[in-house]
Amino acid sequence: MERVCIVGAGVIGSLFAGHLAQVCDVSVLTRRKEHADALNRDGLRVTGRSDRRACVTATNDPDHLPEFDVAIVATKAGGLEAAAEALEGRFPGATIVTVLNGIGAEEVIRSRGHWPIVSGVTFMSGTRHSDTHVEYILDTETWLGPYEDTPFATVQDIADTIVASGLKAEALPDLRPAQWSKLIFNSAVNTVAALTGLPHDFHFAQQAEPTDLGHLVHGLVDEGKAVAAAVGVELHDDPWEMNVLATLRGSAHYPSMLEDVDARRQTEIELITGSLVREADRHGVLVPLSTAVYGLVRGREASWAVI
Amino acid sequence: MERVCIVGAGVIGSLFAGHLAQVCDVSVLTRRKEHADALNRDGLRVTGRSDRRACVTATNDPDHLPEFDVAIVATKAGGLEAAAEALEGRFPGATIVTVLNGIGAEEVIRSRGHWPIVSGVTFMSGTRHSDTHVEYILDTETWLGPYEDTPFATVQDIADTIVASGLKAEALPDLRPAQWSKLIFNSAVNTVAALTGLPHDFHFAQQAEPTDLGHLVHGLVDEGKAVAAAVGVELHDDPWEMNVLATLRGSAHYPSMLEDVDARRQTEIELITGSLVREADRHGVLVPLSTAVYGLVRGREASWAVI
Repeated sequence: MERVCIVGAGVIGSLFAGHLAQVCDVSVLTRRKEHADALNRDGLRVTGRSDRRACVTATNDPDHLPEFDVAIVATKAGGLEAAAEALEGRFPGATIVTVLNGIGAEEVIRSRGHWPIVSGVTFMSGTRHSDTHVEYILDTETWLGPYEDTPFATVQDIADTIVASGLKAEALPDLRPAQWSKLIFNSAVNTVAALTGLPHDFHFAQQAEPTDLGHLVHGLVDEGKAVAAAVGVELHDDPWEMNVLATLRGSAHYPSMLEDVDARRQTEIELITGSLVREADRHGVLVPLSTAVYGLVRGREASWAVI
Repeated sequence: MERVCIVGAGVIGSLFAGHLAQVCDVSVLTRRKEHADALNRDGLRVTGRSDRRACVTATNDPDHLPEFDVAIVATKAGGLEAAAEALEGRFPGATIVTVLNGIGAEEVIRSRGHWPIVSGVTFMSGTRHSDTHVEYILDTETWLGPYEDTPFATVQDIADTIVASGLKAEALPDLRPAQWSKLIFNSAVNTVAALTGLPHDFHFAQQAEPTDLGHLVHGLVDEGKAVAAAVGVELHDDPWEMNVLATLRGSAHYPSMLEDVDARRQTEIELITGSLVREADRHGVLVPLSTAVYGLVRGREASWAVI
């Protein structure tokens, strides 16, 4: 892994690019031309948990991407199709890593080519200050695992390089337990935050009164666990405990789906609750609460098109 | 019925006051002193479906209210407790009419006195242009029925006076079928509108795809119907048909709960979905979807207190 391409330079993509450029040649595929121009001109700066200045080769035109060994697809859900299309028919020797929220990104990539795929889930977070400056806030791990018959050695090699670059990463023989734990957590917490406008605070764990919001979060988590069980995934962490622990932290996290709703941007609902509801349907599991919040978030998105 | 007091001069209260002043002495109890002052100075103007200029005696101080035969309580849910408190210990010979959204207003009034009570549900609507000007938009009926052992003749007399004033009204031996139809309709439509930001448009009836929003509205309606059945109420109209019919109208109605959420005002959730969920609990009916949207709307209200 000498040459890495980061597809999508949001917070997560920028954190990967800024660190990996210390140990590899890094190219970046952006959506906007001005973003690529700024990265080529100014480089990329990481502050916060680490302090890096990185030189990267950026473009918004896949025809101009240099060869690479590994691509890390770190777009938002809404950018995934375009990213997969950009890769289609190119770089047959490369391995593609997906680190999007939710599940199902691997299938979208597979529909466009035969590359070996590595599934990823990242718990790190940051804040985007500009096109060329990202602040590294939560220095938590990225977990990687093989998708289909990708050799574990490939996964291990990528994880080692990420660790060498200064980020935290771990290769797991089976990523699905972690991926599903995060999926179920996000499906409950992100939707409730997006619909109520509440950051991830104490309300999400409150169950004293029968109508407290914690019951809904718990109900959504229980539905997700029933789907995971039907799919045959044993969870890595209990999503309800993840929820309770997170609300005990000092400052309440502002979930990305709530940021998206505030900005009237398309949310990641399709890869998160949408995927969960479709998996439930495929396995004959009833998920009325998840279907309800899925429909409500989609309704919220639809409202932005209404005069 | 010679002397009427209108408690709460929002849209509905103003429509009653502006019309009834043509045939009765009308006093108005307002929340704000400036509102009472403006009404005393300028009178009340109704435009739209009717054209009225009315002279009313307004005050925000219950000690200064003149005697009356009938009070029509037309506050929003959030103003009900204060209204009931204002009436407590006064006007023992009067009859009190409640025309709030939802159910349960009668019990709040009863807890403050022994007056005969008349239950009301109104389908009329309007737009408030100022403290002294309201536009009459939907000239639909107000239905009245006896609460507890109030004689039907009393209900009939009040309905006759309302009709004589130029509004539409009907006295029914049992109001609950109409009250519950509207309750179930409002509990589904108002909450989904408040949470999605959608006016009451085609999305609410859409059921082509398994995840379309109409399924959630239908599910909420079905839960409401199960509660009505457990309570022993036979519905006057099918709330799902009310929903479908309303979405076929030319312009989409903007539900009051969505207006409240937009303005970050306390909503009427407690008398609507809150009452429904409590009735369900009392009768052992499971209403997971109603409980979910109830919690989400309350969460939205709570978010306004969060920094």
